[in-house]
Amino acid sequence: MLIGKVVGTIVATQKDEKLDGLRFMVVRQMTVDGKDTNSYVVAVDAVGSGVGETVLYATGSSARQTTVTDKRPCDAVIMAIVDTWEVDGEVRYQKDGES
Amino acid sequence: MLIGKVVGTIVATQKDEKLDGLRFMVVRQMTVDGKDTNSYVVAVDAVGSGVGETVLYATGSSARQTTVTDKRPCDAVIMAIVDTWEVDGEVRYQKDGES
Amino acid sequence: MLIGKVVGTIVATQKDEKLDGLRFMVVRQMTVDGKDTNSYVVAVDAVGSGVGETVLYATGSSARQTTVTDKRPCDAVIMAIVDTWEVDGEVRYQKDGES
Amino acid sequence: MLIGKVVGTIVATQKDEKLDGLRFMVVRQMTVDGKDTNSYVVAVDAVGSGVGETVLYATGSSARQTTVTDKRPCDAVIMAIVDTWEVDGEVRYQKDGES
Amino acid sequence: MLIGKVVGTIVATQKDEKLDGLRFMVVRQMTVDGKDTNSYVVAVDAVGSGVGETVLYATGSSARQTTVTDKRPCDAVIMAIVDTWEVDGEVRYQKDGES
Repeated sequence: MLIGKVVGTIVATQKDEKLDGLRFMVVRQMTVDGKDTNSYVVAVDAVGSGVGETVLYATGSSARQTTVTDKRPCDAVIMAIVDTWEVDGEVRYQKDGES
Repeated sequence: MLIGKVVGTIVATQKDEKLDGLRFMVVRQMTVDGKDTNSYVVAVDAVGSGVGETVLYATGSSARQTTVTDKRPCDAVIMAIVDTWEVDGEVRYQKDGES
Repeated sequence: MLIGKVVGTIVATQKDEKLDGLRFMVVRQMTVDGKDTNSYVVAVDAVGSGVGETVLYATGSSARQTTVTDKRPCDAVIMAIVDTWEVDGEVRYQKDGES
Repeated sequence: MLIGKVVGTIVATQKDEKLDGLRFMVVRQMTVDGKDTNSYVVAVDAVGSGVGETVLYATGSSARQTTVTDKRPCDAVIMAIVDTWEVDGEVRYQKDGES
Repeated sequence: MLIGKVVGTIVATQKDEKLDGLRFMVVRQMTVDGKDTNSYVVAVDAVGSGVGETVLYATGSSARQTTVTDKRPCDAVIMAIVDTWEVDGEVRYQKDGES
C-alpha cells in the first residue's frame, strides 16, 4: 500500500457497467515524510473517504478484494483512512491536523 | 486507474486469436493537472471511446474484468470516459472543452 | 500493452519444465513516436514474430492468457504484430517500412 | 521480493472490514548494498516483525498468499525477517548488527 | 522476464511457513547490452542456479507458476539459466564466458 491524500474527484457517466455506483477519487501519493509528490492515482473509494483526507490505497489485483470492487475493472482502491502514522520514532501525521 | 488522452490507434492483423475484434488505442498519460506526459500505454477500448477523448484506464489483471477483455491477453483497458475532473477545488477538465 | 521492436533472442536449456518449447525474444520498448528506448523485456512469442518486427506485448498475469503461455511462469508475451500505428493524425509506422 | 527496513507503523481505524487485526508497517526499501532509499511501501506484517528489523517483502497478488493476508485488499506483505545477506562474496548484513 | 546476474543470497529463518525450503537469491538486473544496473530483486530459485550465473527471472503472479513457488508469497522467480543471448545480430553473452 501507499500513503496518499485525496485531492479530487472524477465524474464519468459513460463507463463499463460494472463500475456503476463507484466513486472515483484522485489520490496524490505522499512520501514517507508526509510530503506531496507528483505521482497520483485514480482510486475507487471503499471506506467513505473524502477530499482532504490521508488514506492508504492498494493497487493491482488486491484492489479488487473489497466488497465494492470485487470483479470490477478497477486497479486501485482506498481501503483505509489513516489516523496516525509514525516513522523513525516521530509522529508524522495525526488526523485532525496536529502533526 | 490513470487519466489519459486517446491520441491514436494501432492496427494488427496477425495477433492472438482471443484478441479478434478488439480495438487498440494509444493512450497518453496525463498529469493530475491535465498536462501531457511522455508515458503512454496501448489499451483496449471497452466503452466506445475515440481519438481526442479524455479517459480512465486500468492496467494489470484488472484490465481483464470488462466483458470485452475477459480472459484475453490484454493488460490495459479504457473503462470510462471522463466528464469532469476536479483537483484542489478547481475543475481541471470538462468534456466539450471548457476547462 | 506497449509497442516494442524484437531485437534479439535468448537460448536457455536449463529452465522450468513448463517453459519447454517456448521462444524467448528480447523486445526493446519504443516511444509513442516510434523511437527506441533503453527499456527492454524478454517476452515469449505467441504470434510467430521474428527479429526486426514491431510488436505489441502484454505483461503481468495477462501474459499468461494466450494458449502457448497458459499457466507458465512467463510475465511478458508478444500477442500481436503491428501493421500500422497512427498518433496525432499521423502514421508513425507502417509494416514494410514506408513510415 | 525486495529488502527493506521497518521504520514505522500506521494506525487506521476506519478501514475495509477484511483488514481488521492486521498490522500496517512502513517499510523503507534498501539497495543491494544495504543503503536506505527514498522508496517505501506500507506492508502488512505476517511474521511478527518490528520497527528496526531488516525484512523481505513481497508485493502484488503474491502479498495475499500468507495466511493472514489471504483474500484481503493488501498489496504488500512482510514475509521474512532477514538473518544474513551476502552480495559479491561479502556479508552486507547480519542480524544483531555486526555488518 | 528480465535478464539478471545472481550476485548473492539471503538467509531468513523467521518466515512465512509456505517459504520453508526455498532459496532466496539476490539478482542484479542487467541491461540489454549486458551491463550491470543498480536495480535488483530477491528471487526464489526454481532451476538450480548459483551465484555468478546469468538468468531469466519472472515477477508478479507469474512467479508463482513454477512447482516450487506455487501458492507461495513469492513475487519473483528464477525460471531459466541463460546459455546465449543475442541482440542486434551480435552475441552479447555466452555461458562459460566467451562473450
